[in-house]
Amino acid sequence: MLTEIHQGNTIGPVVKNITQEKIDLYAEASGDFNPIHIDESFAASTPLGGTIAHGMLILAYASEMMTLAFGQKWITGGKLSAKFKEPARPGDTVTINGTIDSIKEQNGISYANCSFRCCNQKDATIIIGEASVKLSAD
Amino acid sequence: MLTEIHQGNTIGPVVKNITQEKIDLYAEASGDFNPIHIDESFAASTPLGGTIAHGMLILAYASEMMTLAFGQKWITGGKLSAKFKEPARPGDTVTINGTIDSIKEQNGISYANCSFRCCNQKDATIIIGEASVKLSAD
Repeated sequence: MLTEIHQGNTIGPVVKNITQEKIDLYAEASGDFNPIHIDESFAASTPLGGTIAHGMLILAYASEMMTLAFGQKWITGGKLSAKFKEPARPGDTVTINGTIDSIKEQNGISYANCSFRCCNQKDATIIIGEASVKLSAD
Repeated sequence: MLTEIHQGNTIGPVVKNITQEKIDLYAEASGDFNPIHIDESFAASTPLGGTIAHGMLILAYASEMMTLAFGQKWITGGKLSAKFKEPARPGDTVTINGTIDSIKEQNGISYANCSFRCCNQKDATIIIGEASVKLSAD
Protein backbone atom coordinates (compact mmCIF):
# COMPACT_ATOMS: atom_id res chain seq x y z
CA MET A 1 0.00 0.00 0.00
CA LEU A 2 1.02 3.60 -0.55
CA THR A 3 2.25 5.07 2.71
CA GLU A 4 1.54 8.60 1.50
CA ILE A 5 -1.07 9.60 -1.03
CA HIS A 6 -0.21 12.65 -3.08
CA GLN A 7 -1.17 14.08 -6.42
CA GLY A 8 1.41 12.98 -8.99
CA ASN A 9 2.27 9.68 -7.23
CA THR A 10 2.64 6.78 -9.59
CA ILE A 11 0.90 3.51 -8.84
CA GLY A 12 1.84 0.08 -10.12
CA PRO A 13 3.21 -1.28 -12.27
CA VAL A 14 1.45 -4.61 -12.28
CA VAL A 15 2.97 -6.92 -14.91
CA LYS A 16 1.27 -10.11 -16.10
CA ASN A 17 2.08 -12.75 -18.65
CA ILE A 18 -1.06 -13.76 -20.51
CA THR A 19 -1.38 -17.47 -21.17
CA GLN A 20 -4.16 -19.62 -22.60
CA GLU A 21 -4.24 -21.39 -19.22
CA LYS A 22 -5.04 -18.12 -17.42
CA ILE A 23 -7.73 -17.30 -20.00
CA ASP A 24 -9.28 -20.77 -19.61
CA LEU A 25 -9.31 -20.41 -15.83
CA TYR A 26 -10.89 -16.95 -16.14
CA ALA A 27 -13.56 -18.41 -18.46
CA GLU A 28 -14.43 -20.93 -15.77
CA ALA A 29 -14.45 -18.34 -12.98
CA SER A 30 -16.52 -15.78 -14.85
CA GLY A 31 -18.75 -18.27 -16.67
CA ASP A 32 -17.82 -16.63 -19.99
CA PHE A 33 -16.95 -19.48 -22.36
CA ASN A 34 -17.21 -17.51 -25.62
CA PRO A 35 -15.14 -19.50 -28.16
CA ILE A 36 -13.20 -16.37 -29.17
CA HIS A 37 -11.47 -16.72 -25.79
CA ILE A 38 -11.02 -20.47 -25.47
CA ASP A 39 -11.36 -22.29 -28.81
CA GLU A 40 -8.04 -21.81 -30.59
CA SER A 41 -9.05 -23.28 -33.94
CA PHE A 42 -12.35 -21.36 -34.05
CA ALA A 43 -10.62 -18.11 -33.05
CA ALA A 44 -7.92 -18.62 -35.70
CA SER A 45 -10.65 -18.67 -38.36
CA THR A 46 -12.05 -15.26 -37.33
CA PRO A 47 -10.71 -11.79 -38.25
CA LEU A 48 -9.05 -11.73 -34.81
CA GLY A 49 -6.76 -14.55 -35.97
CA GLY A 50 -6.54 -16.30 -32.61
CA THR A 51 -7.86 -16.36 -29.07
CA ILE A 52 -7.99 -13.16 -27.06
CA ALA A 53 -8.11 -12.62 -23.31
CA HIS A 54 -11.36 -11.45 -21.76
CA GLY A 55 -11.12 -7.66 -21.47
CA MET A 56 -12.42 -8.01 -17.93
CA LEU A 57 -9.44 -10.20 -17.00
CA ILE A 58 -7.08 -7.39 -17.96
CA LEU A 59 -9.30 -4.91 -16.12
CA ALA A 60 -9.06 -7.19 -13.06
CA TYR A 61 -5.30 -6.62 -13.13
CA ALA A 62 -5.92 -2.85 -13.07
CA SER A 63 -8.14 -3.44 -10.04
CA GLU A 64 -5.28 -5.43 -8.46
CA MET A 65 -3.02 -2.39 -8.97
CA MET A 66 -5.60 -0.25 -7.14
CA THR A 67 -5.81 -2.78 -4.29
CA LEU A 68 -2.03 -2.82 -3.96
CA ALA A 69 -2.05 0.99 -3.72
CA PHE A 70 -5.16 1.62 -1.62
CA GLY A 71 -6.01 -1.67 0.11
CA GLN A 72 -9.40 -1.92 1.81
CA LYS A 73 -10.42 1.55 0.60
CA TRP A 74 -10.47 0.23 -2.96
CA ILE A 75 -12.01 -3.13 -2.09
CA THR A 76 -15.05 -1.74 -0.31
CA GLY A 77 -15.90 1.00 -2.76
CA GLY A 78 -14.59 2.85 -5.69
CA LYS A 79 -15.38 3.97 -9.17
CA LEU A 80 -13.88 2.70 -12.36
CA SER A 81 -14.16 3.59 -16.00
CA ALA A 82 -12.39 1.80 -18.79
CA LYS A 83 -12.13 1.90 -22.54
CA PHE A 84 -11.10 -1.33 -24.26
CA LYS A 85 -8.80 -0.47 -27.18
CA GLU A 86 -7.07 -3.67 -28.30
CA PRO A 87 -7.31 -7.27 -27.18
CA ALA A 88 -4.56 -8.98 -25.18
CA ARG A 89 -3.49 -12.37 -26.50
CA PRO A 90 -1.78 -15.46 -25.15
CA GLY A 91 1.97 -14.78 -25.12
CA ASP A 92 1.51 -11.08 -24.41
CA THR A 93 3.04 -9.38 -21.40
CA VAL A 94 0.64 -6.79 -20.08
CA THR A 95 1.82 -3.89 -17.92
CA ILE A 96 -0.52 -1.62 -15.98
CA ASN A 97 0.70 1.76 -14.76
CA GLY A 98 -1.25 4.46 -13.01
CA THR A 99 -0.97 7.96 -11.63
CA ILE A 100 -2.83 9.85 -8.91
CA ASP A 101 -4.04 12.78 -10.99
CA SER A 102 -5.78 14.70 -8.23
CA ILE A 103 -7.04 14.56 -4.68
CA LYS A 104 -10.36 16.31 -4.37
CA GLU A 105 -12.81 16.93 -1.61
CA GLN A 106 -16.54 16.58 -2.10
CA ASN A 107 -18.98 17.04 0.79
CA GLY A 108 -16.08 16.78 3.24
CA ILE A 109 -14.82 13.47 1.85
CA SER A 110 -11.47 13.17 0.02
CA TYR A 111 -11.21 11.19 -3.18
CA ALA A 112 -8.07 10.17 -5.05
CA ASN A 113 -8.68 10.32 -8.80
CA CYS A 114 -6.31 8.08 -10.74
CA SER A 115 -5.76 7.28 -14.37
CA PHE A 116 -4.23 4.09 -15.66
CA ARG A 117 -3.11 2.45 -18.86
CA CYS A 118 -2.66 -1.22 -19.70
CA CYS A 119 -0.27 -1.87 -22.56
CA ASN A 120 1.36 -4.91 -24.13
CA GLN A 121 5.04 -5.62 -24.82
CA LYS A 122 4.81 -3.57 -28.04
CA ASP A 123 3.45 -0.60 -26.06
CA ALA A 124 0.04 -0.94 -27.76
CA THR A 125 -2.73 0.30 -25.49
CA ILE A 126 -5.02 -2.50 -24.31
CA ILE A 127 -7.16 -0.48 -21.89
CA ILE A 128 -7.13 3.11 -20.72
CA GLY A 129 -9.16 4.09 -17.74
CA GLU A 130 -9.79 6.06 -14.62
CA ALA A 131 -10.38 4.95 -11.07
CA SER A 132 -11.39 6.92 -8.05
CA VAL A 133 -11.26 5.89 -4.42
CA LYS A 134 -12.74 7.39 -1.27
CA LEU A 135 -9.84 8.11 1.07
CA SER A 136 -11.71 8.83 4.25
CA ALA A 137 -13.58 5.50 4.37
CA ASP A 138 -11.84 3.04 6.70
CA MET B 1 -28.06 -11.32 -29.10
CA LEU B 2 -30.53 -8.53 -29.60
CA THR B 3 -32.06 -8.80 -33.07
CA GLU B 4 -33.01 -5.13 -33.06
CA ILE B 5 -31.24 -2.40 -31.16
CA HIS B 6 -33.47 0.46 -30.10
CA GLN B 7 -33.45 3.13 -27.46
CA GLY B 8 -35.49 1.92 -24.51
CA ASN B 9 -34.75 -1.80 -25.07
CA THR B 10 -34.02 -3.68 -21.91
CA ILE B 11 -31.00 -5.96 -21.74
CA GLY B 12 -30.47 -8.88 -19.39
CA PRO B 13 -31.30 -9.96 -16.83
CA VAL B 14 -28.29 -12.05 -15.92
CA VAL B 15 -28.88 -13.83 -12.60
CA LYS B 16 -26.06 -15.46 -10.61
CA ASN B 17 -25.84 -17.26 -7.31
CA ILE B 18 -22.72 -16.20 -5.46
CA THR B 19 -20.90 -19.02 -3.71
CA GLN B 20 -17.58 -19.22 -1.88
CA GLU B 21 -16.49 -21.75 -4.53
CA LYS B 22 -17.04 -19.18 -7.32
CA ILE B 23 -15.15 -16.54 -5.31
CA ASP B 24 -12.24 -18.96 -4.72
CA LEU B 25 -12.11 -19.80 -8.43
CA TYR B 26 -12.18 -16.11 -9.33
CA ALA B 27 -9.31 -15.49 -6.86
CA GLU B 28 -7.26 -18.10 -8.68
CA ALA B 29 -8.14 -16.77 -12.14
CA SER B 30 -7.51 -13.11 -11.31
CA GLY B 31 -4.56 -13.71 -8.97
CA ASP B 32 -6.34 -11.69 -6.27
CA PHE B 33 -6.08 -13.73 -3.08
CA ASN B 34 -6.91 -10.94 -0.64
CA PRO B 35 -8.10 -12.72 2.54
CA ILE B 36 -11.25 -10.57 2.67
CA HIS B 37 -12.44 -12.67 -0.30
CA ILE B 38 -11.21 -16.14 0.60
CA ASP B 39 -10.36 -16.49 4.30
CA GLU B 40 -13.68 -16.95 6.08
CA SER B 41 -12.38 -16.73 9.64
CA PHE B 42 -10.24 -13.66 8.90
CA ALA B 43 -13.11 -11.95 7.07
CA ALA B 44 -15.50 -12.71 9.95
CA SER B 45 -13.21 -10.76 12.30
CA THR B 46 -13.35 -7.58 10.15
CA PRO B 47 -16.09 -4.92 10.05
CA LEU B 48 -17.37 -6.65 6.88
CA GLY B 49 -18.31 -9.66 9.03
CA GLY B 50 -17.52 -12.29 6.40
CA THR B 51 -16.06 -12.88 2.96
CA ILE B 52 -17.18 -10.71 0.07
CA ALA B 53 -17.03 -11.38 -3.66
CA HIS B 54 -14.50 -9.49 -5.73
CA GLY B 55 -16.30 -6.44 -7.16
CA MET B 56 -14.73 -7.29 -10.50
CA LEU B 57 -16.41 -10.71 -10.48
CA ILE B 58 -19.81 -9.02 -10.29
CA LEU B 59 -18.73 -6.54 -12.97
CA ALA B 60 -17.77 -9.53 -15.14
CA TYR B 61 -21.40 -10.63 -14.98
CA ALA B 62 -22.44 -7.18 -16.24
CA SER B 63 -19.98 -7.67 -19.09
CA GLU B 64 -21.60 -11.06 -19.76
CA MET B 65 -24.96 -9.28 -20.06
CA MET B 66 -23.42 -6.93 -22.65
CA THR B 67 -21.95 -9.88 -24.58
CA LEU B 68 -25.33 -11.62 -24.61
CA ALA B 69 -26.91 -8.45 -26.02
CA PHE B 70 -24.21 -7.24 -28.43
CA GLY B 71 -21.91 -10.22 -29.11
CA GLN B 72 -18.63 -9.53 -30.87
CA LYS B 73 -19.26 -5.77 -30.89
CA TRP B 74 -18.91 -5.76 -27.11
CA ILE B 75 -16.05 -8.24 -26.99
CA THR B 76 -13.76 -6.33 -29.33
CA GLY B 77 -14.31 -2.89 -27.89
CA GLY B 78 -16.50 -0.94 -25.62
CA LYS B 79 -16.52 1.43 -22.72
CA LEU B 80 -17.56 0.70 -19.20
CA SER B 81 -17.95 2.71 -16.05
CA ALA B 82 -18.98 1.31 -12.72
CA LYS B 83 -19.53 2.43 -9.18
CA PHE B 84 -19.19 -0.21 -6.48
CA LYS B 85 -21.84 0.45 -3.82
CA GLU B 86 -22.13 -2.65 -1.64
CA PRO B 87 -20.30 -5.96 -1.61
CA ALA B 88 -21.91 -9.20 -2.77
CA ARG B 89 -21.54 -12.13 -0.39
CA PRO B 90 -21.66 -15.91 -0.59
CA GLY B 91 -25.33 -16.92 -0.56
CA ASP B 92 -26.43 -13.81 -2.42
CA THR B 93 -28.34 -13.94 -5.67
CA VAL B 94 -27.18 -11.12 -7.90
CA THR B 95 -29.32 -9.84 -10.76
CA ILE B 96 -28.04 -7.52 -13.47
CA ASN B 97 -30.48 -5.53 -15.58
CA GLY B 98 -29.75 -2.96 -18.23
CA THR B 99 -31.39 -0.53 -20.62
CA ILE B 100 -30.31 1.02 -23.90
CA ASP B 101 -30.62 4.68 -22.94
CA SER B 102 -29.68 6.20 -26.27
CA ILE B 103 -28.23 5.50 -29.67
CA LYS B 104 -25.95 8.30 -30.75
CA GLU B 105 -23.82 9.02 -33.74
CA GLN B 106 -20.35 10.45 -33.44
CA ASN B 107 -18.13 10.98 -36.50
CA GLY B 108 -20.46 8.77 -38.53
CA ILE B 109 -20.30 5.86 -36.08
CA SER B 110 -23.32 4.75 -34.01
CA TYR B 111 -22.93 3.95 -30.35
CA ALA B 112 -25.47 2.33 -28.02
CA ASN B 113 -25.24 3.87 -24.57
CA CYS B 114 -26.56 1.56 -21.88
CA SER B 115 -26.97 1.79 -18.15
CA PHE B 116 -27.08 -1.17 -15.81
CA ARG B 117 -27.64 -2.07 -12.19
CA CYS B 118 -26.54 -5.12 -10.23
CA CYS B 119 -28.62 -5.78 -7.15
CA ASN B 120 -28.90 -8.57 -4.61
CA GLN B 121 -31.96 -10.52 -3.47
CA LYS B 122 -32.87 -7.68 -1.05
CA ASP B 123 -32.76 -5.21 -3.96
CA ALA B 124 -29.67 -3.50 -2.48
CA THR B 125 -27.53 -1.99 -5.22
CA ILE B 126 -24.19 -3.77 -5.63
CA ILE B 127 -22.96 -1.89 -8.69
CA ILE B 128 -24.41 0.79 -10.92
CA GLY B 129 -22.77 1.55 -14.20
CA GLU B 130 -22.84 2.53 -17.81
CA ALA B 131 -21.57 0.74 -20.87
CA SER B 132 -21.29 1.90 -24.41
CA VAL B 133 -20.72 -0.16 -27.54
CA LYS B 134 -19.81 0.78 -31.11
CA LEU B 135 -22.56 -0.57 -33.34
CA SER B 136 -20.96 -0.10 -36.71
CA ALA B 137 -17.86 -2.19 -35.95
CA ASP B 138 -18.25 -5.70 -37.36
